Amino acid sequence: MSRLQVLVQLRWSDMDAYGHVNNVAMLTLLEEARIAAFWSRPSGAPAPTTAVLDAGPGADSHTLVARQEIEYLRPLGYQREPVTVLLWLGHLGGASLDVCYEVRDVAPDIATSTVVARAISTVVLVDAASGRPRRMTVTERDAWTPYLEEPLTLRRAARDR
Amino acid sequence: MSRLQVLVQLRWSDMDAYGHVNNVAMLTLLEEARIAAFWSRPSGAPAPTTAVLDAGPGADSHTLVARQEIEYLRPLGYQREPVTVLLWLGHLGGASLDVCYEVRDVAPDIATSTVVARAISTVVLVDAASGRPRRMTVTERDAWTPYLEEPLTLRRAARDR
Amino acid sequence: MSRLQVLVQLRWSDMDAYGHVNNVAMLTLLEEARIAAFWSRPSGAPAPTTAVLDAGPGADSHTLVARQEIEYLRPLGYQREPVTVLLWLGHLGGASLDVCYEVRDVAPDIATSTVVARAISTVVLVDAASGRPRRMTVTERDAWTPYLEEPLTLRRAARDR
Amino acid sequence: MSRLQVLVQLRWSDMDAYGHVNNVAMLTLLEEARIAAFWSRPSGAPAPTTAVLDAGPGADSHTLVARQEIEYLRPLGYQREPVTVLLWLGHLGGASLDVCYEVRDVAPDIATSTVVARAISTVVLVDAASGRPRRMTVTERDAWTPYLEEPLTLRRAARDR
Repeated sequence: MSRLQVLVQLRWSDMDAYGHVNNVAMLTLLEEARIAAFWSRPSGAPAPTTAVLDAGPGADSHTLVARQEIEYLRPLGYQREPVTVLLWLGHLGGASLDVCYEVRDVAPDIATSTVVARAISTVVLVDAASGRPRRMTVTERDAWTPYLEEPLTLRRAARDR
Repeated sequence: MSRLQVLVQLRWSDMDAYGHVNNVAMLTLLEEARIAAFWSRPSGAPAPTTAVLDAGPGADSHTLVARQEIEYLRPLGYQREPVTVLLWLGHLGGASLDVCYEVRDVAPDIATSTVVARAISTVVLVDAASGRPRRMTVTERDAWTPYLEEPLTLRRAARDR
Repeated sequence: MSRLQVLVQLRWSDMDAYGHVNNVAMLTLLEEARIAAFWSRPSGAPAPTTAVLDAGPGADSHTLVARQEIEYLRPLGYQREPVTVLLWLGHLGGASLDVCYEVRDVAPDIATSTVVARAISTVVLVDAASGRPRRMTVTERDAWTPYLEEPLTLRRAARDR
Repeated sequence: MSRLQVLVQLRWSDMDAYGHVNNVAMLTLLEEARIAAFWSRPSGAPAPTTAVLDAGPGADSHTLVARQEIEYLRPLGYQREPVTVLLWLGHLGGASLDVCYEVRDVAPDIATSTVVARAISTVVLVDAASGRPRRMTVTERDAWTPYLEEPLTLRRAARDR
């Protein structure tokens, strides 16, 4: 079982008037974790082996989020230390992937930390010029397959319970 | 069948570097629509009949989002006119409700507009002092029941297909 | 004396953990007011006569903010009604303009409202292709000259007092 | 001459539709740098010696921004490495301080980096209970005095040129 572990710094402005990280801001934290895990880095900085996606501004590909599902397990207060986001892949499709996330409130001591949110995003690979989905490359599939594992099972909305 | 119709103004900063409304910003639009539909207004301004929830800052109740699920049907470019958000309730529980949304890109001509996103949020009513869930009041249930209808069925992540 | 009057809707997420509109969010409100006042509208919607700047995404021109100066006169709590922003021009240069703003907390009753912030932005007109400043056109200057008046005098930082 | 040096991580969402860090987002970066430099840390994490301000949520003091002034020297593109913010104090008043910032685009090689923005914020110390300004404590003044130096001189709006 291989999971990527990414640290994401909170910002004070992630808090809303209730004094907790806002539910929408949590998805920005997922966005940052996803970029750190999958986008290539132009510089020589250390990066996870999954970071093969040339999807920055000006690149040939864009990544579009087609759907997201998130559950909030407990309120996340402001903390100066980064949160830890664990990422893995629940599915590799022809032109898309399902990214699974678990957000934990204290880093780096994973063992005693608490899960504050869990989520899944379906990300579609898009050709920047045409705006249409494009096939996942062999390089991408090879880099990502080791992180393919059992997808998250999130709570359903009430209709399904 | 009763649905609430709320207009939400885009901001230029809702766009990301791809030139479309960012996937996370879309959830801020839903937050604004939900507040307009369900929170009471201190002033004498016209409000929907569902706006009975005293959940502003300083109120006895908070509303916490317990889960969200959203699908993006097509990119939403910047527009000066507000988007239209249709809201209804997919479920009324003891201490929570499922809010369903349909976001449409041109207002107010609903008939010819396009659905750009659909979503469900499970919102929990919380006692502000204790931080614990509280029962839905009779006033709330009476105000909201007319908007109870068939919940949205969103596309699943790949695991379920 | 001609001033433009623009209504800008607050968002709940403009508040920070102190329960007031965040100091940075206030500048987003100014950005929205500036766009409403100066950018042309593709649709037939009513617009101020100053809205001649073809500076949306994909346009030939960009507008870059070169400097900003803002003073906060009192905290702005959350309100469901839009704030009123009064705008005028403190200077029209060869390739830039100084936009002056006064933000008032209750709309539309200007007479009894309170000034919560005052600000000045220097905006540079930029050719989108070259990224270089471009001359203000005659159309722009003609549209904007009626709104040219005495610039704001803001409090200085302590060094100047 | 003592200046504090703080690294601040960009977020992809700091970019606007022009593909550069938005002018408003730059002020969020300053907010993060200011918190890192001046707010005390509950944990044992290393912190600058200036971090004596107990101004987090729930603390006895709030910090309110009374004014800000910023100039943008060149567009800041997205980068994965943090930007460097240099901070010092241009003035220590009875109940307020002027924080000066210089934002540089590549860290940690300060020598060859480029200044992208310079700014000054006047921050007022406020008693959280009463909402009124409070005197700077001896501990605060002692911690901050070593960082007091010549304030920034920013370009003026056109009226002063």
